[in-house]
Amino acid sequence: METPDHATDTPADSSGATGIATQDWATAAADPQYRAAVVDLLGALAYGELAAFERLAEDAKLAPTLGDKAELAKMAAAEFHHFEQLTERLTAVDEEPTAAMEPFAKALDDFHRQTAPSDWLEGLVKAYVGDSIASDFYREVAARLDTDTRSLVLSVLDDTGHGNFAVEKVRAAIEADPRVGGRLALWARRLMGEALSQAQRVVADRDALSTMLVGGVADGFDLAEVGRMFSRITEAHTKRMAALGLAA
Amino acid sequence: METPDHATDTPADSSGATGIATQDWATAAADPQYRAAVVDLLGALAYGELAAFERLAEDAKLAPTLGDKAELAKMAAAEFHHFEQLTERLTAVDEEPTAAMEPFAKALDDFHRQTAPSDWLEGLVKAYVGDSIASDFYREVAARLDTDTRSLVLSVLDDTGHGNFAVEKVRAAIEADPRVGGRLALWARRLMGEALSQAQRVVADRDALSTMLVGGVADGFDLAEVGRMFSRITEAHTKRMAALGLAA
Repeated sequence: METPDHATDTPADSSGATGIATQDWATAAADPQYRAAVVDLLGALAYGELAAFERLAEDAKLAPTLGDKAELAKMAAAEFHHFEQLTERLTAVDEEPTAAMEPFAKALDDFHRQTAPSDWLEGLVKAYVGDSIASDFYREVAARLDTDTRSLVLSVLDDTGHGNFAVEKVRAAIEADPRVGGRLALWARRLMGEALSQAQRVVADRDALSTMLVGGVADGFDLAEVGRMFSRITEAHTKRMAALGLAA
Repeated sequence: METPDHATDTPADSSGATGIATQDWATAAADPQYRAAVVDLLGALAYGELAAFERLAEDAKLAPTLGDKAELAKMAAAEFHHFEQLTERLTAVDEEPTAAMEPFAKALDDFHRQTAPSDWLEGLVKAYVGDSIASDFYREVAARLDTDTRSLVLSVLDDTGHGNFAVEKVRAAIEADPRVGGRLALWARRLMGEALSQAQRVVADRDALSTMLVGGVADGFDLAEVGRMFSRITEAHTKRMAALGLAA
């Protein structure tokens, strides 16, 4: 079974770019504002992985079978290794990982608290929707980063196998009882709403990060482009939900 | 800071043994009773690792700092990789991992339910006491296994770093407030009691495993030796508790 693609309408190719996207970390980081933005990004991503680890480990308890539980535990361990890669990079560039993560802890904790799944299927939909949106977002941003940071960000976004597993289980559940689809579609909408509201809070709070997002430092990002980015992400989400048998 | 040793009064050396402990898996497993006992052992160990993963991931939520949380998540991921090694071995010897684990799920789940830590320090003491006792027990058993199973069992019991981390944190907490020591000593006694009571249930339920333990199939284990083994494990526990600043 195929996992629907990530946002396929990829951002403008950066091969012609003359700025950050062609530079390595050492060159790009000479700009303190760019450096601060990347530290924010890595901190947010690291805390996100740690929170994802916790969430998946927690959801593993809802698993109906021992095999399902092992599958979720495996994903959780994969998230933890991403977390390790990110914190190692922060340490390597002389940043304290905890300090870099802390500004994002509240927004991510709040998101998870507001969207605690009440059963196994809600947990799977959340893992799938949450990771897909986060992955789309970071892929968009990655295209505008220096070459070293870009390859790190892309490597930790490598598919950890959530997609296929969740899609298969959720489809089977809807097939067995079509009413499940309506409930999960509502749930997916709520997840998207909460994710956007927390993302807005983060952007409002973190100057360096949001300046990068709206074109202050990295290549080719202006306010109109941010709008298009959100359209692409929302569209990809809609397609994924349809593939799952849910109206988004 | 040193972690106190595991049971130092090691079981009788098996170098002179002419039985199972000198054979490889292929030879030893020709005896169906031995084979069944090892499958039981690997199943119990695998479920134990999965349950330990869940417990550590759960306890990570109680962590007072982000750094402590990351430390517990790291241990949880290490347990998960042990789980993977064990289930891979079960698959390699044509056993279904889930079927091998299932007989032990209830005892381990009950143990964890009966001993849910109410705070961060109780969680650390539990991780330390539980892993140490389990590790002592499996080391004793390992000496009596075929060479292939022995090296697997010993490799998954490799220190995942719980010891030093827990010892350091618990000692510091007792130093800061000596009354904490009394409460944690009681807690450690309760953990030991629950562990023994669940272990007895498992031994009573699983014929192949208990026959191996009392000398039916593997080398040199008779009822008197089992008694001595429990003495060694209890003694090692007492020493560890003293090193932690707790009267056992």
